[in-house]
Parts: sequence; C-alpha cells; structure tokens
Amino acid sequence: MDRGRLEAFSDGVFAVAITLLALDLTLPGPGHGSLTGQLGTHKFAFVAYLISFLTIGIIWVNHHAVVTMIAVVNRTLLFLNLVLLFFVVLIPFATRTMALYLTAGDQDAHLATALYGGIFVAMGLSFAAISAWTLREGRTSWALPPPARRAAWARFAVGNLGYIIAIVLALTPTSWGIAAALALIGFVAVYYIAERTPDAPAAGS
Amino acid sequence: MDRGRLEAFSDGVFAVAITLLALDLTLPGPGHGSLTGQLGTHKFAFVAYLISFLTIGIIWVNHHAVVTMIAVVNRTLLFLNLVLLFFVVLIPFATRTMALYLTAGDQDAHLATALYGGIFVAMGLSFAAISAWTLREGRTSWALPPPARRAAWARFAVGNLGYIIAIVLALTPTSWGIAAALALIGFVAVYYIAERTPDAPAAGS
Amino acid sequence: MDRGRLEAFSDGVFAVAITLLALDLTLPGPGHGSLTGQLGTHKFAFVAYLISFLTIGIIWVNHHAVVTMIAVVNRTLLFLNLVLLFFVVLIPFATRTMALYLTAGDQDAHLATALYGGIFVAMGLSFAAISAWTLREGRTSWALPPPARRAAWARFAVGNLGYIIAIVLALTPTSWGIAAALALIGFVAVYYIAERTPDAPAAGS
Amino acid sequence: MDRGRLEAFSDGVFAVAITLLALDLTLPGPGHGSLTGQLGTHKFAFVAYLISFLTIGIIWVNHHAVVTMIAVVNRTLLFLNLVLLFFVVLIPFATRTMALYLTAGDQDAHLATALYGGIFVAMGLSFAAISAWTLREGRTSWALPPPARRAAWARFAVGNLGYIIAIVLALTPTSWGIAAALALIGFVAVYYIAERTPDAPAAGS
Repeated sequence: MDRGRLEAFSDGVFAVAITLLALDLTLPGPGHGSLTGQLGTHKFAFVAYLISFLTIGIIWVNHHAVVTMIAVVNRTLLFLNLVLLFFVVLIPFATRTMALYLTAGDQDAHLATALYGGIFVAMGLSFAAISAWTLREGRTSWALPPPARRAAWARFAVGNLGYIIAIVLALTPTSWGIAAALALIGFVAVYYIAERTPDAPAAGS
Repeated sequence: MDRGRLEAFSDGVFAVAITLLALDLTLPGPGHGSLTGQLGTHKFAFVAYLISFLTIGIIWVNHHAVVTMIAVVNRTLLFLNLVLLFFVVLIPFATRTMALYLTAGDQDAHLATALYGGIFVAMGLSFAAISAWTLREGRTSWALPPPARRAAWARFAVGNLGYIIAIVLALTPTSWGIAAALALIGFVAVYYIAERTPDAPAAGS
Repeated sequence: MDRGRLEAFSDGVFAVAITLLALDLTLPGPGHGSLTGQLGTHKFAFVAYLISFLTIGIIWVNHHAVVTMIAVVNRTLLFLNLVLLFFVVLIPFATRTMALYLTAGDQDAHLATALYGGIFVAMGLSFAAISAWTLREGRTSWALPPPARRAAWARFAVGNLGYIIAIVLALTPTSWGIAAALALIGFVAVYYIAERTPDAPAAGS
Repeated sequence: MDRGRLEAFSDGVFAVAITLLALDLTLPGPGHGSLTGQLGTHKFAFVAYLISFLTIGIIWVNHHAVVTMIAVVNRTLLFLNLVLLFFVVLIPFATRTMALYLTAGDQDAHLATALYGGIFVAMGLSFAAISAWTLREGRTSWALPPPARRAAWARFAVGNLGYIIAIVLALTPTSWGIAAALALIGFVAVYYIAERTPDAPAAGS
C-alpha cells in the first residue's frame, strides 16, 4: 500500500472531525435572552472549540511529518493509524461534553474536563505508537541519527506528560484546576507548533 | 476513468461515515444524573461505536487492497462501488438505532441488532461483488494464481458467514444472544485485520 | 489551475453530501411503537434516501467524465462548478423535506415532491452549463466529433425532461402522481448509469 | 512538506464546511403551517446559505490560486493556514445564528449580522496574512512583478474594507442596514469571482 491513500483517508477524517467541532457551537437563539448574554453563557464552548481545533490541527501537521518518513506501509501501521483516528474522532464528543458541563457549572465539570484530557492522552499514546513503529530500524525512508530519535521521544513525553498533568489538575476540586487544565492542554498545542517532529534532511523550512 | 478519483471519492465517503459515527455519542448532559451514570447508561453506544469504527476502518483497508489490483475502471465497477458505499453510509444509521434500543433495554433490541448485522451482510456481499468482478480474467493489473483466488473467496465466505450467524444469534430471545452477535461482528473485524486480501506481488509488507 | 484540485474539492462535496443523506434516517426510537412499525412509517425516508443516493452517485460519475475532457480550467468553469455544487448540497435538504411530508401524509406532500424535482432540474441545468462550456471548440483535450456532441446534448435533454415531467406528475392532485414522480426520478438515475457521457477515445471500458 | 497534503486537508475542510451550511436548512415540517408559508418564513436562511456558500466557494478558489504560487511550505504557513480554516469552520455557525435572528425578527438581528460580518473580516485578515507571507521575496515559485503585488494587496483591501463597512451597516438601527450589509457581503463574493488573485504566468485562462 502506498502512503498516498493512507494520507488521503486520514486527511479526510481530520478534516471532518475538525469541522464537526463547530457543529456544537449552537446558541439557543431568539427568545432565550440577549445574544450578548448567550455568547457569554456559552463562552466555554468557544474556548473548548479553540483548544480542540488547535490540537486536531497540530496532530494533522505532526501526522504528516511522521508519515512522510515512512518507507513501508503495512497492515500493522494501518491498524495503528486506525487507533489514532479512533481517538481523533472522539475529540468532538469530548469537547461537546466538557462544554456542556462547564456552561452549566455542574458538579461533574471536573470529571468532564478530565475525560477531555483522557481522550488527548489516548490520542497522544496512539501517536507515540505510530512513531515508535516508524522509528524502528529500516522503516524510515532515510536514516535518522540517534539524537534525532531521542529528541522525537522527548517531544512525545512532554506532550503526554502535559495531558496527564492536565487530568490531575482537572480533578482538583477547585475552579482554577479546570482553568489550569485547559490552559495546559492549549499550551501543549502551542508547544507542538514550535517544536517540530523530525523532518526530511533536505526539506527547507 | 482512472483509479485515483474512484479512490478519492470512496475515501471521502469512508472518512465522513466513520467520523459521523461519533456524532451519535451525545450524552443528555447536566441535569440528567451524574456524568458517570450517563456514561454507564450509554455504554452500549460506545461499544457500538467501537465495533462500527473498526469495521468501516477494515472495509477501507480491504477496499484499497482490491482497488489497487484493478486494471480497468468502467461503469460496472463504479456502480458496484456505489452499491458498497450505499451500505457503508447506512452503518451510522444502523449503529445509532441499535445503540438506542440496547440502551433502553427494549423488546426490539434483538431486531435492532439483527438489522445492524443485516447492513453488514449487505455491505459484505457488495464487497464480494466488487471482488468477483475484479478477480475475473484480465481485470487485474497482474496475474493472480488460482490458490490466491481461492483464498480470497474463502476470506469473503468467512466474513459473510460470521455476519449471518450474528443475525441468527441476535434474534435468539436471550440477552446473551445479542452480546454474542456483537462479539462475533467485532471478531470478524479483527479477523480481517489479521487475514489479508491479495496484495501486489512486489509489495513488501 | 489544474484539474486535480477542482476534482478533489468537488469529490469532497459529493462525498459529504451523499453521506449526510443518511443523517436524516433517524427513527424516533424506543417508546414510540415497535421497531417494525417505525421502519414502516418511515419507509418513504428510505425510498428518498435510495433515489437521492443514486442520483448524487451518478452526478459524481458524470462529473468525472466531463472534467476528464477539460483542457483548460479557468474562473468561468470554477464558477459554473460552484453553481452545480450549490444544488448538490441542497439535495439532502430537499430529500429530508420531502420525506417528512410523505411520512406525515400531509397536503403539502405534492409541493415537497415538486421541490425535490426542482432541485434536480436546477442541478441538471448547471451540469448542462458545464458541459456546454466544455464542449465548445478548443476546450476539450481531444476533438469531439459532431455526432458525439449531439449524443451528449440528447442525454442532457432526456434527463432534464424527465425531471420536469416528474415535477408535473408530483403536482397532480392524486397519490399515484407522487409515486410516478419518484419512479421517474429513480429511472433517470438508472438511465444515466446505462447511457454514458462521452469518454476519452483511448479509454477501454 | 509538500503542497499536496496542505491542499488536500484544506480542500477537505472547505468541502465539509460548505456542505454543512445546508444542514441548517431544516423546516419545521408538517403541522407547522403550509410548506409555502414555512419557506417564506425561512427565506433569510436561504439568502444566508447563498451568500455563505458563494463566499466559501470563492475563498477556496483564491486559496488554490495563492497556494499554487508557494515554493516553500513550512510550519509558519501551516499555522497561518490553520488560522484561516479556524474562521472558515466558524462560517456555518455564524450563518445559522444570523438566519435564526433574522427569521425571528429579533432585536439582536443587527448584532447577529455584525457577528457574521466579523467572521468574514477575521477570515479575510487570515487570508491576507497567508498572502503577505507568500508574497515575500523568495517564497513564490516564480518572480512576481511589483505591479502584480500591488494589485494583490489592493484586492485584499477592497474585500476586507467591504466586510468592515458591512459590519457598520449591520449595526445601523434600521432594517435596510441589515439588507445593505448582506448585499455588500454578497457583492464582495461576486467581486472576487471577477477579480483574480495573481496566477502562474504560463497559465492560460
């Protein structure tokens, strides 16, 4: 199997998942208080949309960077990729659930935020599995020097550690715990924009 | 017609269908009991999502394997492909309906599960039709030896037989019948991950 | 602009529109009568899904056939293509509306069916506009002999005439008028499967 | 990173966003007055659909024109592109919200229309950022003469100015203000159909 169709299918799933995020941005509409008031009440839905959009966008960028290196596409990789997409597709669900509970100021807001972080951990681990498989000898199109491999692992560790700390923060029974968890998840996305996965040696960037 | 656009359109439909599966994972939200309780009540929706996601993912992998072999794309193939996609697009509907009835513990849970299996039989038969058309003389890009053809047919028989047995199990008026049916459909997906459709002779995998 | 991205975008819209059709196949679920009864009540939704799916599928096949011939992609063509997609995207809306009124057995079922036919006329005319633009001198990649052009025009005339007659039938104040309109629209789709748009001279099919 | 996958992902998002626009075209259905009456009541939803569809379609056309020129795809460009898509994905939300308030004839109709224009300004500025980045020395595949650069900037200025005036008009406390705002946003889309972004020198169009 060539990389092209793996990328096409994955891109399709990323594109649909990222666009579905905005389906949940529905206001109650006329007759439920002023529009400004409604926008204010649903502010968490917009924050959650922003963080989830950024995260899916970054996964897509990193997915491309890893897939570009792959010399051999086999069933194991296809299956690992399906596991990653399985959690990517759950992101709109986790986003919607968290936004619902944050908006209502419900007791379960902590759990909903932790669940949101949990999906990101699962997604991060699936991504690490794809990378681990790819970084093994003979599976990359070009030789990756050991320091580059170590750097790649460090990057994954940082991201997943960030998500795990976010879960712990979310479960802290104080309102700033949730805010800190969301800030941390957003920070991980920004970190991945700056820090890059290993690239082709000749690629100018 | 080249294979490229057949693949692009099919990939798009697979990607949208697999992502829409998660649209049905909507919890009632705050004010309808604890979040843990809601997750527990809707556990069947998550199991159904898992099985359907895995099955669509595997159809996509196998679809690629078959299309790669095709030397001639004509109207008959396009039509057979549309029939396959027709049933793929129905999978989110069948998944949602089954999850609804399993969650409610309704009398009709058996019928809804059988319907779910029925969509998979229809999908499996459409896929077999595409393969039958492809495996005929002169339509594959490389000669496929008779044992490989027989193996391909055996694989289709196993999958479709599994789905038919799942329907029979689902209609058994005991609660383990439904569980067994779902386990079997999940098992067929896992079987197709391990067992592979005939691949290009030169492909290293 | 190359044809590739025109095709990619159009394929994406076709794929999403065809998959969204099945979003409307939602049953009321447990507590609203037996599942068999619900499937019976919503039988028109399934018929409408079948006809719309087939029609979008066929438009996609024909779209590819026409785009393959195009030598020059310019702004006019992109705009004509947007007009076509505008009506393709309306098909799920028209399908849903018709299914709602047919299921309720409402007075307005005739109008809803005529509206459904109207979207198909608009889509058919947009497609004819793309073809007209393409068939003009110097815009096809190979010379198309006059008989092939005449045949192409005859095909468009048949389809659009079929849709216009379907509208007239739908507005006939008898229940068989609606059934006849739907049968005719389904027949046009089947007709386009058999009758083909002009193909590349060298294409073996 | 090659341009191909940037285009594929963006095309996917454009295609899903443009198709989701029509998801909001749902009528109340039987039992809520005549179908003609319902179509009349929701006429603003159709006008909003038309304007948003045209605008997303034109962004897609212009996006392709700019991306074609790009010689180097790096992280900065990917991030700028994500920002653009962030606002494109918000267009269905803004369209739906505006249509709801216009249909209800609510006090907040002015604010909802201004919000709609605001999303277009944000989208237009993101697009200008991508173009600004692309038009800098050495980032285009071919040398772009200064007059062509100035013309490109003039085009962006016209569009964004149009959107800003539309916001001002929308906030004017008269009903024609909203109509004028919508007409202006529609006019900007038509303007971009006629006026084109710089094209490859050899491209015949």
